[in-house]
Amino acid sequence: MHAQEMIRTHPRVRGNANDELIRCIEACYDCAQACIACADACLGEDSIQQLTQCIRLNLDCADVCTATGAVASRRTGSDETLLKAMLDACAQACRRCGAECGAHASMHEHCKVCADVCQQCERSCMVASGTITPTRQ
Amino acid sequence: MHAQEMIRTHPRVRGNANDELIRCIEACYDCAQACIACADACLGEDSIQQLTQCIRLNLDCADVCTATGAVASRRTGSDETLLKAMLDACAQACRRCGAECGAHASMHEHCKVCADVCQQCERSCMVASGTITPTRQ
Amino acid sequence: MHAQEMIRTHPRVRGNANDELIRCIEACYDCAQACIACADACLGEDSIQQLTQCIRLNLDCADVCTATGAVASRRTGSDETLLKAMLDACAQACRRCGAECGAHASMHEHCKVCADVCQQCERSCMVASGTITPTRQ
Amino acid sequence: MHAQEMIRTHPRVRGNANDELIRCIEACYDCAQACIACADACLGEDSIQQLTQCIRLNLDCADVCTATGAVASRRTGSDETLLKAMLDACAQACRRCGAECGAHASMHEHCKVCADVCQQCERSCMVASGTITPTRQ
Repeated sequence: MHAQEMIRTHPRVRGNANDELIRCIEACYDCAQACIACADACLGEDSIQQLTQCIRLNLDCADVCTATGAVASRRTGSDETLLKAMLDACAQACRRCGAECGAHASMHEHCKVCADVCQQCERSCMVASGTITPTRQ
Repeated sequence: MHAQEMIRTHPRVRGNANDELIRCIEACYDCAQACIACADACLGEDSIQQLTQCIRLNLDCADVCTATGAVASRRTGSDETLLKAMLDACAQACRRCGAECGAHASMHEHCKVCADVCQQCERSCMVASGTITPTRQ
Repeated sequence: MHAQEMIRTHPRVRGNANDELIRCIEACYDCAQACIACADACLGEDSIQQLTQCIRLNLDCADVCTATGAVASRRTGSDETLLKAMLDACAQACRRCGAECGAHASMHEHCKVCADVCQQCERSCMVASGTITPTRQ
Repeated sequence: MHAQEMIRTHPRVRGNANDELIRCIEACYDCAQACIACADACLGEDSIQQLTQCIRLNLDCADVCTATGAVASRRTGSDETLLKAMLDACAQACRRCGAECGAHASMHEHCKVCADVCQQCERSCMVASGTITPTRQ
């Protein structure tokens, strides 16, 4: 992905990029794709009855990661309170989805890969959130 | 929209629909469309230099509303903590966007309409959030 | 929804709104929500094994409707070739999803509602597509 | 990104992955992020009046890439006609956005990066589309 090049060349950022946020943006897009693919892979398993909570959490996580990646990619103007709220919500979505996928990791390799991606995105969101100071409004 | 009919016929909901959440789902989709359209209308104004913060908040608000509407539409399995976090983040996005659009309402009629839609969505998200008890995890 | 008020007040549209396109925008958001809810309702059914194709088409249809509603909401600048391609792809997504939901309509009321919404969106996309002339490039 | 690992471990794919489609999925997510970031970077430029068509095409391209990446990530059930229509629409979105960004590449480095990403995604979509045979319906 090219998040670093895009943010580094932004007119309001030049020379002042937040590397933790850039890593988080890439983790969010990675996780959105993995969760959409994992939901669909679960749908194709014979044991789908046991995977309904996993599919639901996958779909929630994908939606929240996509929105968080977009909000975090914007550096013109600001709403740091919203950015922090989304990073925290995204960490929550990844935590729950990663835990559920992790519980099926020994049976379904796609759940194992997805659990790893979710856990990495959860950590990236928490680290990035720690760098953001909500604006007083 | 058909959110009420869809939720009312859901196998895990029958007879136990959360009307505040249903109204919130429809408000989120309404607000997502209004914000995308307002960002684009601002882009077409001669005074665009004064509208960059408005466009940025419109785009954030649209992304968060779309994700919140999707998460709130799912009733199989659960992650009430995430749902509440997203409703609260969405209320925040609508509050900031509604305030910014409201500041240009006398000059740009699309900002006036969008400010009203944002304020209605903010209220719907706060009311719906009040009905959700985060799950202990 | 407020698509009509938003488009009518757009600086590049004033007095020249395309009513078929406005109806299509609202149909796309309605259908996106219905399809996300129907996928989740199918996930909650005991007969989920028979509904995997329905869930997959629901999710595709929701994604395409969301993107089409957004592209159709923009009136600054233009890419009429893309708009027409998206309206046609969206009609295709709604046709397949509506047919699949329709096949389960007698057993699952959410599929019946969703089939109706898909068929209405398919028609709106086709009518709107007929009003668009692709730009020569 | 992990598209390859996710698709390779899908129960309906095992040993039969379409490498062109996998590369295209990753290109779509890369391009969605780059276009969201480029729209926002254009918004922060002093010469924003000259960049309104660029911003509009960026936003369209991001929406279409996000939807295409999602549809292409699903391998349970099928709608090859829709997949091909979305790959073709996405190639069109990338072509127009890449051309517009390319026209500002000497003045704005973010447009140069985005033009490259769009052109790579356009090629990936065209190659992937060539591997898909629409289903007779």
